Amino acid sequence: MTSDPFFHPVSGFELPRFAGVPSFMRLPVVQPDHDRFGDVNVGILGVPWDSGTTNRPGPRHGPRQLRDASTMIRAQHPVSGLRPFEVLNVADLGDVGPNPADIMDSMDRITAFYGGLVAQGITPLTAGGDHLTSLPILRALAKDGPLGMVHFDSHTDLYHSYFGGTMYTHGTPFRRAVEEGLLDPKRVVMIGIRGTMYDTEDRDFAKSVGIRVIPIEEFHDRGPADVMAEACEIAGTGKTYVSYDIDFVDPTFAPGTGTPEVGGPNSYQALQVVRMLEGVNIVGADLVEVSPPFDTSGGTAFLGVSIMFELLCKIVEARR
Amino acid sequence: MTSDPFFHPVSGFELPRFAGVPSFMRLPVVQPDHDRFGDVNVGILGVPWDSGTTNRPGPRHGPRQLRDASTMIRAQHPVSGLRPFEVLNVADLGDVGPNPADIMDSMDRITAFYGGLVAQGITPLTAGGDHLTSLPILRALAKDGPLGMVHFDSHTDLYHSYFGGTMYTHGTPFRRAVEEGLLDPKRVVMIGIRGTMYDTEDRDFAKSVGIRVIPIEEFHDRGPADVMAEACEIAGTGKTYVSYDIDFVDPTFAPGTGTPEVGGPNSYQALQVVRMLEGVNIVGADLVEVSPPFDTSGGTAFLGVSIMFELLCKIVEARR
Amino acid sequence: MTSDPFFHPVSGFELPRFAGVPSFMRLPVVQPDHDRFGDVNVGILGVPWDSGTTNRPGPRHGPRQLRDASTMIRAQHPVSGLRPFEVLNVADLGDVGPNPADIMDSMDRITAFYGGLVAQGITPLTAGGDHLTSLPILRALAKDGPLGMVHFDSHTDLYHSYFGGTMYTHGTPFRRAVEEGLLDPKRVVMIGIRGTMYDTEDRDFAKSVGIRVIPIEEFHDRGPADVMAEACEIAGTGKTYVSYDIDFVDPTFAPGTGTPEVGGPNSYQALQVVRMLEGVNIVGADLVEVSPPFDTSGGTAFLGVSIMFELLCKIVEARR
Amino acid sequence: MTSDPFFHPVSGFELPRFAGVPSFMRLPVVQPDHDRFGDVNVGILGVPWDSGTTNRPGPRHGPRQLRDASTMIRAQHPVSGLRPFEVLNVADLGDVGPNPADIMDSMDRITAFYGGLVAQGITPLTAGGDHLTSLPILRALAKDGPLGMVHFDSHTDLYHSYFGGTMYTHGTPFRRAVEEGLLDPKRVVMIGIRGTMYDTEDRDFAKSVGIRVIPIEEFHDRGPADVMAEACEIAGTGKTYVSYDIDFVDPTFAPGTGTPEVGGPNSYQALQVVRMLEGVNIVGADLVEVSPPFDTSGGTAFLGVSIMFELLCKIVEARR
Amino acid sequence: MTSDPFFHPVSGFELPRFAGVPSFMRLPVVQPDHDRFGDVNVGILGVPWDSGTTNRPGPRHGPRQLRDASTMIRAQHPVSGLRPFEVLNVADLGDVGPNPADIMDSMDRITAFYGGLVAQGITPLTAGGDHLTSLPILRALAKDGPLGMVHFDSHTDLYHSYFGGTMYTHGTPFRRAVEEGLLDPKRVVMIGIRGTMYDTEDRDFAKSVGIRVIPIEEFHDRGPADVMAEACEIAGTGKTYVSYDIDFVDPTFAPGTGTPEVGGPNSYQALQVVRMLEGVNIVGADLVEVSPPFDTSGGTAFLGVSIMFELLCKIVEARR
Amino acid sequence: MTSDPFFHPVSGFELPRFAGVPSFMRLPVVQPDHDRFGDVNVGILGVPWDSGTTNRPGPRHGPRQLRDASTMIRAQHPVSGLRPFEVLNVADLGDVGPNPADIMDSMDRITAFYGGLVAQGITPLTAGGDHLTSLPILRALAKDGPLGMVHFDSHTDLYHSYFGGTMYTHGTPFRRAVEEGLLDPKRVVMIGIRGTMYDTEDRDFAKSVGIRVIPIEEFHDRGPADVMAEACEIAGTGKTYVSYDIDFVDPTFAPGTGTPEVGGPNSYQALQVVRMLEGVNIVGADLVEVSPPFDTSGGTAFLGVSIMFELLCKIVEARR
Repeated sequence: MTSDPFFHPVSGFELPRFAGVPSFMRLPVVQPDHDRFGDVNVGILGVPWDSGTTNRPGPRHGPRQLRDASTMIRAQHPVSGLRPFEVLNVADLGDVGPNPADIMDSMDRITAFYGGLVAQGITPLTAGGDHLTSLPILRALAKDGPLGMVHFDSHTDLYHSYFGGTMYTHGTPFRRAVEEGLLDPKRVVMIGIRGTMYDTEDRDFAKSVGIRVIPIEEFHDRGPADVMAEACEIAGTGKTYVSYDIDFVDPTFAPGTGTPEVGGPNSYQALQVVRMLEGVNIVGADLVEVSPPFDTSGGTAFLGVSIMFELLCKIVEARR
Repeated sequence: MTSDPFFHPVSGFELPRFAGVPSFMRLPVVQPDHDRFGDVNVGILGVPWDSGTTNRPGPRHGPRQLRDASTMIRAQHPVSGLRPFEVLNVADLGDVGPNPADIMDSMDRITAFYGGLVAQGITPLTAGGDHLTSLPILRALAKDGPLGMVHFDSHTDLYHSYFGGTMYTHGTPFRRAVEEGLLDPKRVVMIGIRGTMYDTEDRDFAKSVGIRVIPIEEFHDRGPADVMAEACEIAGTGKTYVSYDIDFVDPTFAPGTGTPEVGGPNSYQALQVVRMLEGVNIVGADLVEVSPPFDTSGGTAFLGVSIMFELLCKIVEARR
Repeated sequence: MTSDPFFHPVSGFELPRFAGVPSFMRLPVVQPDHDRFGDVNVGILGVPWDSGTTNRPGPRHGPRQLRDASTMIRAQHPVSGLRPFEVLNVADLGDVGPNPADIMDSMDRITAFYGGLVAQGITPLTAGGDHLTSLPILRALAKDGPLGMVHFDSHTDLYHSYFGGTMYTHGTPFRRAVEEGLLDPKRVVMIGIRGTMYDTEDRDFAKSVGIRVIPIEEFHDRGPADVMAEACEIAGTGKTYVSYDIDFVDPTFAPGTGTPEVGGPNSYQALQVVRMLEGVNIVGADLVEVSPPFDTSGGTAFLGVSIMFELLCKIVEARR
Repeated sequence: MTSDPFFHPVSGFELPRFAGVPSFMRLPVVQPDHDRFGDVNVGILGVPWDSGTTNRPGPRHGPRQLRDASTMIRAQHPVSGLRPFEVLNVADLGDVGPNPADIMDSMDRITAFYGGLVAQGITPLTAGGDHLTSLPILRALAKDGPLGMVHFDSHTDLYHSYFGGTMYTHGTPFRRAVEEGLLDPKRVVMIGIRGTMYDTEDRDFAKSVGIRVIPIEEFHDRGPADVMAEACEIAGTGKTYVSYDIDFVDPTFAPGTGTPEVGGPNSYQALQVVRMLEGVNIVGADLVEVSPPFDTSGGTAFLGVSIMFELLCKIVEARR
Repeated sequence: MTSDPFFHPVSGFELPRFAGVPSFMRLPVVQPDHDRFGDVNVGILGVPWDSGTTNRPGPRHGPRQLRDASTMIRAQHPVSGLRPFEVLNVADLGDVGPNPADIMDSMDRITAFYGGLVAQGITPLTAGGDHLTSLPILRALAKDGPLGMVHFDSHTDLYHSYFGGTMYTHGTPFRRAVEEGLLDPKRVVMIGIRGTMYDTEDRDFAKSVGIRVIPIEEFHDRGPADVMAEACEIAGTGKTYVSYDIDFVDPTFAPGTGTPEVGGPNSYQALQVVRMLEGVNIVGADLVEVSPPFDTSGGTAFLGVSIMFELLCKIVEARR
Repeated sequence: MTSDPFFHPVSGFELPRFAGVPSFMRLPVVQPDHDRFGDVNVGILGVPWDSGTTNRPGPRHGPRQLRDASTMIRAQHPVSGLRPFEVLNVADLGDVGPNPADIMDSMDRITAFYGGLVAQGITPLTAGGDHLTSLPILRALAKDGPLGMVHFDSHTDLYHSYFGGTMYTHGTPFRRAVEEGLLDPKRVVMIGIRGTMYDTEDRDFAKSVGIRVIPIEEFHDRGPADVMAEACEIAGTGKTYVSYDIDFVDPTFAPGTGTPEVGGPNSYQALQVVRMLEGVNIVGADLVEVSPPFDTSGGTAFLGVSIMFELLCKIVEARR
């Protein structure tokens, strides 16, 4: 399978990387009203939305900063040699416009937009946004039945509610997703969980429905290869979503996020875990919780897009 | 009238200003369940809430940063010589707890809290929060009839709605307040308005109800003294609220805010306009839109508490 | 004259200002190969280039940061009421690709690109880049004869050479432009000049060819209105270029630049001087020397695009 | 043993973590004149003092920043499951007020304050301050005989004097403590020592009195578990103080400190070493040298309070 | 009078300003043991010391940052045309080494060093250091009788003591100087005083001894020219010291300082007041309280050296 | 071999480390016209030049920031115990003055300066500058035949050209060096290579001439000891240059650089690899690509000088 040259990104050998309007990975911007929209195979898009944040806001600014940093990404994977943009038609689909003052309206807008992608057969790679973003996406992607999920994070995001009954925050998306039948809990694995806890309500729920939670201590003890082999086995061969919260990574490597937890993986491991997603049938992926106001040096965004490139290569491998 | 020594702030001659738990102006923290709550005359409190923000969030972190900066404030006004903490009982009332994921719930919580202050005869000086904060406060303070208002800002905050019909954002509070009968538009003056405009809908509304809008060009041409004399006349002798959006000040002097507009007053004028509130019957005041994530040097917070000290002195002068 | 709706920018009432791929003022991106290129009247474009910098580099990153900040600009001028995007077809033309390691090659590329704009009748509004950028632009715009120039800056940029004979740096562009017959020195005025000096070679040259230099002391003494009236008279009714170096503004208001000089105009005056360009026949304008690495709070970029909006309105007024 | 609910911290499920006056871990502030002071078991307190700093000052601002960051700490330990605030009465005791312009006076004030804690049976967990802070604390805690010490640091702090005979700086506290009989050198272990050296005077002294110094190369070679087993053995079962200089951690993970040394432990190991303090009879602990002016992203403070939570859990385990 | 070419600074036309070991204004470093020390007329030197700071430390890092920024200073004054380095022999004398852990020892070291300059007939221009620095300097310079002083500041620094009797802090130097007979209070003027006050003890003392205090309100009302004419008259023709605390300037223009006060002069006025020192017999000057840790953009240091260049020109004018 | 005390650095026990004009490691500044120049054995010098940068500029500011950070370096190596300044005469040679607007002129200046060092028998330890800096240095050092090279980097810098034929950029120096016969490719090893790739042109070239490229995956798998043993073997006993690009280190540990690549070595390994250069005949070394504008906390510079101290010790070991 070979991509259409229209979808090839601009090279830094031609136009310096600091030049040009910054689209994701210097790809063409192809929004739904564009005449090439129908030719897109994989769409990279932003959901600039953080209304679900319970602590420090900022991820609404994530997509723009990630686009900027993504102009540093080149055409070829350094280990596998894959040149993803030459295999499939990849485009920047722009951002889904949220309503920052209305959570329910925003979720509806997101689900509707992703429904359109599903209808076109476009695999979405999303730049969040806070982690509540994953819920309306899953509502669109799981139309035909529950998905498996590989979830990198320092939190389970499985709480029931906050602040006396509020059901939709970035601490609750996967509780809702399980309740709504969007995820098959037996095919869900959560990796990197750590940090001081309110209580064990989230983990008790995980246990009760069969979600596998791998705390950071186990990750460090067993090492990425062993853990990821188990994760791939859990996900199995069914349709699987990959959700990557940047706070999975140690906050020194990724300070630009709202709910950091000390003691996570380093930046090399941050890439390794994606590279080790062998044989997973990925139907969508996201990278969420990048918060530019707390990213003093811009390093979080660059790590974020480096992870997104890894996710893209896995999507391309799965689809080609 | 002389205050109770319990309510005197800690002096920097005794405890260095960098030491101690940071309460507003180093006052005692007296929350509603404290046994001295009934003795408070003026309460300084925070509303850490920014769910109404349409652009860059952050004011939810304002009260904490303002408390920190306020430890630099000393006991005496440099021009009038007033020592406000020795005239009335002033206390830090803590923060009103919002629900960051539910605007309506948050507004109800705020109105209820301020209702309690009104019941106790406590005059509130509020540290926001975004500008939507003023609406639920006005709902509590205007129980007995519409108030006048002196409003410092670069925006009118008089828009009807955003994002296809959303009525409650930081761009709409005073439209709602007029509609709800909380403000008497004939006694409302808005000073410092500037910046590129969407359209003239807000100003058309102002004109139609009789709100006086003084754009920044007029402010710079006439000078603070002339403008403020008119403002005091508009407010008259009736009950008046003072709402001070930090983006009234030029963004170079106050970068820590979400919707800056170039070309505003300098820091000296920022204090002058409050000092010139002669004879205004102030029943409450707020300083809103201080956004720590964008306040790289901390100067916005220090300017903010300097303005709050000026507002406090005016409240004390009005009440004693 | 009324613009084509295709060229209307996205409104912040529809899509929040933090969302979307950031083009200049949220305009459509119309590069030379775009099918609507022929319909553009005014083009906003970037020249991300700083190879002429003798001190602190960074302006190569200017266009991208200015695009980001420009998403805060709305549709209407607050004083004149002009809605420029509804009068003429304005578009983001993208960036001219420089060769960061070859000054001569870069100048040729820039002159060629602007030659194409001239051929299409597009008036360019440029975001630099360091001040050497103006030279290759003038080479294209002054094809038919020397131009007048209104030049806002703290430096004359009239030096002969640097470092033992280097003729092309950001300290020499207008010396070259006069020598090459691109500028009519009798119709050139330089406003805001200040700072410690190497010597008087640049000012001696100005005097010898008839360029009017207005130092900052004179600017502060006479005030903007008087100075700008003289400036408009000097420029006269002939074709005139406006070159605005952000270091014209005091470095506290515009820290993001490489060669700051203390004691300049404030941000209000920074806008005023453009508003006072009455009756000038503007055939092109630039805003140069914005250097993101030194713009710790982003305020320089926002001031920069606020100035660009003022320049745009003057271009539209001159052309309609 | 179960704690009094008065001493339970505020939960982030109730009041968002950015709200409220920031006390340590959201505990009640109970200063010596408070009527519940006598019920405190473990006191967390600040010593905002850096007069002993020989290089870059700043730790005087440490306690306030640590309190702010500590509002992110929740109620339960993620590995042991311990809920320390429900076992013992833990409170924020406020700050000890130093005299920033008089070292001797400050040391006397600190020793006096801690003497009061000892008299009340309160175990202190201190947020410094520079490392000289530990000396006046040890003077109070070692009233009944020398203590053992587990010391995490990149420096021994065992020098004799600085600047021609100055005996009290942050490079000398433990030399003084040994000389004054406050520490039993045979029960002292220093872990993580590294960085270029003036000379070997400090290590020669350590050797001569029997202090065990474990340089970072040995730490990395043997690993945390092996090193900490030896450390626990050295401390033995006698009363032991734990002194944790944040510069023990690699400066990339903890940039906010005055005397960084390259090549230290990562953030996971920073927590691990405390978790491995098995069976140590801890009578007090400190976390020192956090310097907010050099902590550009705030990550050092958050790592610092994460370490303090680990220390607190060990104190609670030792005392219950 | 013409200077020796040995003392001419390096030009930015030869060596780019970012290159080279940064000495003050790119002058030769001539310490007391240098064989050209005896030829120096004016010495620029640093006192990296902040042990007298009662609030936020940092000025110990001032001299180094000021040297760095001073490489932007060129050879000629833009208004007077003076080329100071060609009139007198000016050199960088290095720093006076303080003892950061001993105030009395440090003051003795400073006085001894300046005594050596007086003995050589060198006029000192000092970069502090906090304001206590001025006291040991005055002890050396006022050997033959009390001096007059022009003092730019937002504080009087005339307090008796801090923290229960501590006599030597940066809030007390001029109280001590008057008491010790180093200053003639009738010839002392303090300009720019402002900010909230502890009490009026300092101003009462000023009044009692005849020091003229000009608060900022008077400065803004009368304007720099009128105020400075009075200041020059007060200083008269006797030997006079000029002490310039950077916090005289508004903190937006000079954020890098420890005790900011809102509402001061802007950067143009910051230079103007020095330019207006007509006919003052300056025997020494300092620029103090520049605190790099709080100078996020480096602008304070650049403003500081711009002021130092103005002071230097006045010293040269007075001496030639 | 024992050094002359003239060349001993100032101790932090005498003069605090924040005091004094900052030379490299507080050594005497001995430029070519200094009368002790002939006695220097090892010269530390800066090349403040970044005209070869294709992406983000800044390394021209490297030498100054590295000098500042280097005042934290002490006299003795913590592992080997070597006191390098007491073995050989080490001096700060100042900076080579580049022409920032002319690449060819700058390369000639650099080669000429280093030719002078070679003539004097001075071994150079260089602080860059971007990586193109190494080419003109090699032209001077390889006068008598090609050198071996140990090259730490995340990029090979072996590309043929950029931007349509530009031969001299920081991505091409070693391609040129091989072509010019300055390097013996069989004795060249490149360690740490990683990041997304344009294509494989550089690696194909490496293979074709016999350069050994060790990608980061191999580095992490085999560990530093094994990799460095191979590297030493490749370099052999012939004259060898060591070129250390700071972007070899993971960008979290070294954010201050222009072309970061995620997933590199940590700071401990950054030192280890130099310590493991056993028996290499080092005739010169450099540390390049430190870019202060992107080094928000200053940590990159401190890591950089820590690496330079390690390189210095290896040079001294090789020469004594």
